[in-house]
Amino acid sequence: MSGKPLQSITGRTNEHIKNAVRLRENAAQRRERSCLFLEGARLVADAAASSIAIRELFITESAMAKYAELLHKAVNSAETVFVIAEHVADALSDTKSTQGVFGICIQRLVKPLDWCANAGYLALENVRDPGNTGTLLRTAEAFGLRGVIHSGCGDVYSPKVLRAGMGAQFRLPIWHTDNLPSLLREAAENGVSTFAAVQDTDAEDVSGAFSGSAMVAIGNEGSGLTAQTIAACQKRVTIPMAGRAESLNAAAAGAIFCRELVRQPGN
Amino acid sequence: MSGKPLQSITGRTNEHIKNAVRLRENAAQRRERSCLFLEGARLVADAAASSIAIRELFITESAMAKYAELLHKAVNSAETVFVIAEHVADALSDTKSTQGVFGICIQRLVKPLDWCANAGYLALENVRDPGNTGTLLRTAEAFGLRGVIHSGCGDVYSPKVLRAGMGAQFRLPIWHTDNLPSLLREAAENGVSTFAAVQDTDAEDVSGAFSGSAMVAIGNEGSGLTAQTIAACQKRVTIPMAGRAESLNAAAAGAIFCRELVRQPGN
Repeated sequence: MSGKPLQSITGRTNEHIKNAVRLRENAAQRRERSCLFLEGARLVADAAASSIAIRELFITESAMAKYAELLHKAVNSAETVFVIAEHVADALSDTKSTQGVFGICIQRLVKPLDWCANAGYLALENVRDPGNTGTLLRTAEAFGLRGVIHSGCGDVYSPKVLRAGMGAQFRLPIWHTDNLPSLLREAAENGVSTFAAVQDTDAEDVSGAFSGSAMVAIGNEGSGLTAQTIAACQKRVTIPMAGRAESLNAAAAGAIFCRELVRQPGN
Repeated sequence: MSGKPLQSITGRTNEHIKNAVRLRENAAQRRERSCLFLEGARLVADAAASSIAIRELFITESAMAKYAELLHKAVNSAETVFVIAEHVADALSDTKSTQGVFGICIQRLVKPLDWCANAGYLALENVRDPGNTGTLLRTAEAFGLRGVIHSGCGDVYSPKVLRAGMGAQFRLPIWHTDNLPSLLREAAENGVSTFAAVQDTDAEDVSGAFSGSAMVAIGNEGSGLTAQTIAACQKRVTIPMAGRAESLNAAAAGAIFCRELVRQPGN
C-alpha cells in the first residue's frame, strides 16, 4: 500500500495502544496534548483529506486491504503506521463492531473568533447528546456557516461527537466559551444580530427573520436556553409548528435555523 | 400509587419477562401479535396519554417512586402491573442504564392511506439508521404532516426507532408499502404532487416548491433514492447548500422538507 515501514502491534498492553485509549476516554488528555483520537475509515480519510497531521495510524490487516483506496492519503501522510491484531482493534474501539481503523491526529488551530459581514453563526448552549452536537456541526458546515460557538456541551472532539460530525470538526471553525451571554453581547456590539431560539408562540417567525450577520443560540434538549442567554440576545426566534412543538429535536430545529441563516437576503 | 393489585417478578426466567424480551428482539413477533415493547418512563407515559392500551407494565420499585406522577395514568390504565427486581429490569433493558420502566402495548390500528387536500406526506425509502427514522417520524408529527409512508426502512416499531420517535408512532399515521414507485404514481393520480429529494444542483429549490398536497420521498443515508423511485416522482427537489452537500444528514434534510411542506401557500 505504501513504501513506509510498518510496525506491528499484537498486544493490548503496548504503550501506543494504552496511550490511544487514554486519548479516546479522556477529554483533559486530548486538550493537554492537543491530540484527537479518531475511529473509522471515513473519519481518518477525512482528516487526511483536510490536511490534518496524523501522528499514528492503527489499522488491521483486513482493513488495510478493504479500505486501501479510501485510506491511501492517510497511510502515506501518517508519521507512523501500526498494523494491529484484530483483538487489539477491539480494545481500541468505542463501537460494537469496529472497522479496524484508528488514528491519533493533531488538533488543528482555529483562528480567533471574528465578526464577519453577512455571515451566519450558531451558538450551542448545554446541548447534551453527542449525536445532536455532532449533527449540528455537520449541518452548520453543510450550509456554509461562518462557525459554531459552544458552551457547556462537553468535548466536541469526543469520539461520539466526531462520529456524528462526519469530519466537520476538521474544517468548520469551532469556538468554546464559558460565558455565552457575554459573547452574545460582544457579537451584537460588532454588528451581528443575536437570536435566542425558543418555543414561544409570540417570538419572531424564523422565516425571513435574519438579514446581514446573525447568530442563533440553541439550548439544551430538555430545558432549552438559560434565562441569562435569552436575556443577552437581541430577539427571540421560533419555528412555527402545526403539530406538537415539543417534538422537534435540537438537530432538526438546528437544520432549519442553519438554512434560514444562509438564505437571508443579505447573504 | 393505585388500588390495582400488583404482582411481583423476581426472576428473569418468568414467562412474562421472556415474552417481553421476545417482543423487544423480534419484529415478526411484534407484527404477529400486534404488540409493541416499550422502554422508558416518557414513552410509556406517552402511550397512556395517547390512549394506547397497555397490556403489561413492568416497573421497579425505585422507578415507581421516581416516576409516580408521570406514570399515574399508565399504572391506572394498564391491565396488569408487575413490580420487577432491578436485575430483571437489566434483563429487559435495551440500553446501558435503564430507568426500570417497560410496557407491552397493543399496536393501534392506522386508518387506510388516503389522499387529502392541502396535506403534506413524507415517504421514506431504505432509511437504515433507527435514529434517523425515529427523528423523521418525530419531525413529521411536530410539523403536523398528514402521515409518513415507509419502504425498506426495517420495523418502525423497534425499540430504537420508538425511542428516537418520542412517541410519534402512537399518534402519527404511518403506512408501509413494498412498492413505493407504485404508491407514488397512485398519489399523483389522486392530486398529490410527488417530489424526489435529490442532491442534484439542477433540481427544483425546495423553497416554495410545494403547493396543494405534496409528498416528498427521502432515500437511504448513503445511496439516496432508488432510480425507480426517482423516476416515479413528478419532480426532483433539492436543498441548495453553500458548503459540503454530502454533509447534510437524512434527519436534518427531512426537517427542512417537513417545514416547507406545511409552509406551502395552499396550506
